[in-house]
Amino acid sequence: MNYMDLAINESLKGIGKVNPNPLVGAVIVKNNKILSTGYHEFFGGRHAEVVAIDNAKEKGYSIKNSEMYVTLEPCSHYGKTPPCADRIIKEGIKKVYVGLKDPNPLVGGKGIKKLKDAGIYVEVGLMKEKIKGINRVFLTYIVQKRPYVHLKLALTLDGFIANKDGNSKWISNESSRKIVHEMRNFYSSILVGAGTILKDNPSLNVRLTKKIRNPLKIILDKHGLTANKNLNIYNEGENIIFTSSNEKWNFKNTEIIYTDKLNIKDILKELYNRHIDSVLVEGGSKVASEFIEYADRISLFYSSKIFGRGISPFENLKNEKNLKTLSIKNIDNNILWELENVYWNS
Amino acid sequence: MNYMDLAINESLKGIGKVNPNPLVGAVIVKNNKILSTGYHEFFGGRHAEVVAIDNAKEKGYSIKNSEMYVTLEPCSHYGKTPPCADRIIKEGIKKVYVGLKDPNPLVGGKGIKKLKDAGIYVEVGLMKEKIKGINRVFLTYIVQKRPYVHLKLALTLDGFIANKDGNSKWISNESSRKIVHEMRNFYSSILVGAGTILKDNPSLNVRLTKKIRNPLKIILDKHGLTANKNLNIYNEGENIIFTSSNEKWNFKNTEIIYTDKLNIKDILKELYNRHIDSVLVEGGSKVASEFIEYADRISLFYSSKIFGRGISPFENLKNEKNLKTLSIKNIDNNILWELENVYWNS
Repeated sequence: MNYMDLAINESLKGIGKVNPNPLVGAVIVKNNKILSTGYHEFFGGRHAEVVAIDNAKEKGYSIKNSEMYVTLEPCSHYGKTPPCADRIIKEGIKKVYVGLKDPNPLVGGKGIKKLKDAGIYVEVGLMKEKIKGINRVFLTYIVQKRPYVHLKLALTLDGFIANKDGNSKWISNESSRKIVHEMRNFYSSILVGAGTILKDNPSLNVRLTKKIRNPLKIILDKHGLTANKNLNIYNEGENIIFTSSNEKWNFKNTEIIYTDKLNIKDILKELYNRHIDSVLVEGGSKVASEFIEYADRISLFYSSKIFGRGISPFENLKNEKNLKTLSIKNIDNNILWELENVYWNS
Repeated sequence: MNYMDLAINESLKGIGKVNPNPLVGAVIVKNNKILSTGYHEFFGGRHAEVVAIDNAKEKGYSIKNSEMYVTLEPCSHYGKTPPCADRIIKEGIKKVYVGLKDPNPLVGGKGIKKLKDAGIYVEVGLMKEKIKGINRVFLTYIVQKRPYVHLKLALTLDGFIANKDGNSKWISNESSRKIVHEMRNFYSSILVGAGTILKDNPSLNVRLTKKIRNPLKIILDKHGLTANKNLNIYNEGENIIFTSSNEKWNFKNTEIIYTDKLNIKDILKELYNRHIDSVLVEGGSKVASEFIEYADRISLFYSSKIFGRGISPFENLKNEKNLKTLSIKNIDNNILWELENVYWNS
């Protein structure tokens, strides 16, 4: 494994903890020996570069004339922490390998310039594409000023998300469900429609993999159908309900956002304003039909079951459309098909 | 490549030409040198063993004390040709490697016994599973006394075989369609319902790959909806129509089979009685819903299109069911999912 690969692996330890900040990892190397590693550990915490520097010093190493591998450009401005570029210069690090330039147009390139002006050798772009993929949430949030949208659905092989009685339990297999719970760890929030909640009474928490934290739950319930009901989703964690209903909402840890109609663009804007950088949309058909147009990524889990008739995933879709395949995977003889919109983000 | 692999590859040259006979290939080897190869070339023609022997002799080789690799047990009885076992003994071949024992319970093992009784060293079972797969049609036809049934469907990613206007053209991509035409080369017949013919006016011939021959077409048209119409399917090749309608059927090269109701078991029996060893079922929904219960193999081609609403593949299915995955393939970013029934044949 090369040093930037190691820095990337470090960065992944921040999954679920740093949002809406990026996932960043750093490695300090001297004479081909790894002195220390570090990653951005939690929102508001020290940056990866500083953690790596502190770790090296704690171990008693001199890092003067060392090299640093860092997945994202070191910052040059005072934010929640002092600028990393200043610290790198101060410590006498002589070479810095940067994966990705800061995507924020206001500051991107300034950290690199600062390092170069101080006489440090800087190389930019190492494993850039991989880092972009890992930081797709952050990049979308910063550049497009909206949450990253990932739509996930479980279907029978004949394309139903529930049978004709509305039953959707256990369409997918255990390995597929585990991947869904890993997704819940990865994204800041889960979004569902009231119909799905009433039908399945889901908890929408992280259970089938090592839980990092439960994501925020976002419920679209225009008519207040879930108000005053004893439902699993309201029994733990935090919720936001978008509604136009004047029902008495007395769930704890729940914010009510009143809107006349549930317009997806407005919903995404509201979430962005609350610093929510990503949404995992988990159905049902009405929600999927609307969000398919805004989805950055679509994950379809097909099981080998046949229902014959039932509820289709995009029943309310206005026009036929075509997606672009990202990958096709065999998950214990079920399929995980990942796709993206052809036009969105292009 | 080993000698049995070579014999298998030879056998494949008989695809589309030998039905309802098996695909058989043979290789003659002496002192680690390949003297000749041969395959069963057409129904009623010389057997692979005899072709390989004749080929070796034509080239002027002495095959006394040579070894033969043959994919299926040499026959021991007079059929359309004299027994291969007798010929092998007569030629002084000293070792025979047999892939698969003859599945016909009346003769299976007799050829091997005859060779052994003559002092020939015989080994049975080399690459047996691969040969079974290639000869799945023959094995089903001989052992189960019915045609092998392969159900093929093209679906959008949301599970529709046609949109709400019934349009099903170009759901799948070019590579997927090419595979379908290779299937048409492989199976003796194609089966469709009248609805599909009226909607799509398909030719159901072999075009997108090197044509071996056009398969027989079997049309289920209970009410005579395709009678007296100018339809592509009746313009070339041979057809069998199952119907209960007294319409005047005056298509050339077309046999009409009158039945009160289109019972799948009876249809398969009628086809078996006509020595039709295999059926590729190409839809639509009504036909697929019935044949799914009898399918030995199911091939689903998913395209990255979304229709929202439309015609589902198994709309008339009586009970929910579960299939067993055989393989999942990426075909130019579309999916080919091959499955089998869980209970059928087990």
